[in-house]
Amino acid sequence: MTETTTQEPLRVALLGCGVVGSSVATILTEQAADLAARVGRPLQLVGIAVRRAGRDRSGLPVDPALFTTDAAELVTRADIVIEVIGGIDPARDLILSAMEHGASVVTANKALLAEDGPALYEAAGKAGVDLYYEAAVAGAIPILRPIRESLAGDDVRKVIGIVNGTTNYVLDKMDSTGQGFAEAVEQAQALGYAEADPTADVEGFDAAAKAAILASLAFHSRVSGNDVYREGITEVSAADVQAAREMDCVVKLLAICERVAESAGGEGISVRVHPAMIPRTHPLGSVRDAYNAVFVESAAAGELMFYGKGAGGDPTASAILGDVVTAARHLVGGGRGPAETAYADLPVLDMGQALTRYHISIDVADRPGVLAQVAQAFAAHDVSIETVRQQIIPGADGESGKAQLIVVTHQAPDAALSATVESLGQLETVNEVTSVMRVEGA
Amino acid sequence: MTETTTQEPLRVALLGCGVVGSSVATILTEQAADLAARVGRPLQLVGIAVRRAGRDRSGLPVDPALFTTDAAELVTRADIVIEVIGGIDPARDLILSAMEHGASVVTANKALLAEDGPALYEAAGKAGVDLYYEAAVAGAIPILRPIRESLAGDDVRKVIGIVNGTTNYVLDKMDSTGQGFAEAVEQAQALGYAEADPTADVEGFDAAAKAAILASLAFHSRVSGNDVYREGITEVSAADVQAAREMDCVVKLLAICERVAESAGGEGISVRVHPAMIPRTHPLGSVRDAYNAVFVESAAAGELMFYGKGAGGDPTASAILGDVVTAARHLVGGGRGPAETAYADLPVLDMGQALTRYHISIDVADRPGVLAQVAQAFAAHDVSIETVRQQIIPGADGESGKAQLIVVTHQAPDAALSATVESLGQLETVNEVTSVMRVEGA
Repeated sequence: MTETTTQEPLRVALLGCGVVGSSVATILTEQAADLAARVGRPLQLVGIAVRRAGRDRSGLPVDPALFTTDAAELVTRADIVIEVIGGIDPARDLILSAMEHGASVVTANKALLAEDGPALYEAAGKAGVDLYYEAAVAGAIPILRPIRESLAGDDVRKVIGIVNGTTNYVLDKMDSTGQGFAEAVEQAQALGYAEADPTADVEGFDAAAKAAILASLAFHSRVSGNDVYREGITEVSAADVQAAREMDCVVKLLAICERVAESAGGEGISVRVHPAMIPRTHPLGSVRDAYNAVFVESAAAGELMFYGKGAGGDPTASAILGDVVTAARHLVGGGRGPAETAYADLPVLDMGQALTRYHISIDVADRPGVLAQVAQAFAAHDVSIETVRQQIIPGADGESGKAQLIVVTHQAPDAALSATVESLGQLETVNEVTSVMRVEGA
Repeated sequence: MTETTTQEPLRVALLGCGVVGSSVATILTEQAADLAARVGRPLQLVGIAVRRAGRDRSGLPVDPALFTTDAAELVTRADIVIEVIGGIDPARDLILSAMEHGASVVTANKALLAEDGPALYEAAGKAGVDLYYEAAVAGAIPILRPIRESLAGDDVRKVIGIVNGTTNYVLDKMDSTGQGFAEAVEQAQALGYAEADPTADVEGFDAAAKAAILASLAFHSRVSGNDVYREGITEVSAADVQAAREMDCVVKLLAICERVAESAGGEGISVRVHPAMIPRTHPLGSVRDAYNAVFVESAAAGELMFYGKGAGGDPTASAILGDVVTAARHLVGGGRGPAETAYADLPVLDMGQALTRYHISIDVADRPGVLAQVAQAFAAHDVSIETVRQQIIPGADGESGKAQLIVVTHQAPDAALSATVESLGQLETVNEVTSVMRVEGA
């Protein structure tokens, strides 16, 4: 170790000093000896770009002279640039400039990668530098490196992720307490699990960006955030969660990336974010609180699951520093890590072409022939029913009773399922379609 | 892809053609186009070393001319050598020769790595080639690459693995059916989960080799299989499993690698394999059948878990081919992957210095003062009791009754716990110590 620390250090620039940036700066400083030994050369923090220079950052164990508001200048004098500013601008230009100046880049910026990943990968390839972003998906959980490298000789069929801690916390509370959506969100906000404006989380934008990144790597294709079908959890009701309980299921917001071998619209991949029921016995069914997990099915490996913390300063910093050490070792030893490939170039299918299963609750009139009429609506759209359960609520004197039908379908194109639900609503024997939820993992 | 396949292929040699080797050969052949696109150059299988030339291998989709009994010659004409022969000899010499001839090596050989890893790492470093062995621990589960690279910037505190599928299957059956050890092993053998001679699995040798590999990587130190404290599951009784159930725990054979900051004997690491009770609610508690899982605690990332299939031809081949593609990309792009480091050079502590917790069931005489006497035996060894539960079995007419004490301790040096158990056996009020089991994950 004495030997390594006398070598010329690798210069590390940090862009951004919020919760994650502060953790990164702290670990870089406090663990400097270990990091130097692992890399083979010391890592020297040469600057921290911040928006406001005057803020009190005396709690951080770093030289105050390192703070600068000139990020554009900082990236020109580093071997490795860590970007934790987030957002598209100025992060994109800073990353591109860093790579042009020969620096390897480590970023946690899922929005940027989902919007403009290919341009960044291309720039990294051209500059011959590493571009790593393990922290962009599922925080501390090593998932991108396993997909890109460990599964590089396998054929990934499906990736199902719980990749947003806020929504998992909210849905978990709805499940364990019976609370409605609004109440659970308020509690999540009070505990710091949800932001004051929770839109990016509860509407699924955050998960959609992560799904795009996962799908790109898993299927060697280019998928952007805009390609991802997205439904958030704002419409998930206490009744939906209760309906799931009755099926021994739990409602989760899932990011699903799936290889579709043949479908109405041909071969391709389905990339989507939506709430779905999954069995409690499924490995993803027991992921509680704000934890994340990613379930992977591949041809040879079979079923894998990766579980851990999806957010927070230290967990995100762990993923970033793993990338930093790996990139640094490439700088010391020569070469660079395996980059993305997009050779398969698979098209992203419309949501209508995805093969899904539905759980549908319907209030119907209690009279003969209703079930036949409902079943006919499914058959008309070529949707096969797996189970149907009927609950009768007897009517008062003279009035006809009511009944509830709970239908779970086999797999069918989502368009057919959605058209079936529409037809059901128009049947005169149907009072109301009370709950519609996709079913996964069965 | 057309472009890549016209490039000069990388030559791949396969040593061994059993269950795993056959899967590897099949995937290399059938997925050739995908692998070429991911690597940037085709992978050409140039030979398969087997012990017996004459065996019928017509089921494999490979040119019969590839089979050879001259492994020593084969390794001199390959860019990447895959070793799935197992055992120490001749695997070691073949791997060393392959590296000397400039080939990167991918192996699944846990026994060899646990016995002689440092010599192999050194040879790889000297030759400037990759030495990968993801398949050696927990089969298809990406765990070594995550520890070596993704967590390279973090401070791993503890690794707890269910890394032997046979013993997990046996213990799971004992738990779910109430069967004894012998009966469960017979069933496992009938189903192909246990070998005719199950010693390596049930005595913990297989898990100990994996623990040595995990500990070496997690703690940047050198740990060999002989350094690992080892207890198998042959002494686990139906009563032990029942006692665990009563604690809402399950018995698992665990490979535990733990950083010990301060202990009786100073700083170091504890590396051990033994059965232990863990809570059913622990992420490892729900790992059923022959599945494997590895739970990692680190300073920044917090708790992580990796889950999947730990054995079998295709799952193991998945891990091997991930390593092959990664090594091949280094050959195409230059450089090599981050190698092991052993800079921390932490000593492996004696088992007596490990901090563990015990669950102890004791048959005692039912008379006043017994609990005091038992509690005194714990106190005399500085072992603190967490809970004690007393069950009274009334005596027949005139006879004194019996009582059962169930004690769960706080953490203490294993030597103190084990000395306490010995003292208990000598107390005249103690009829028998009926069950002793360590407790983890609480």
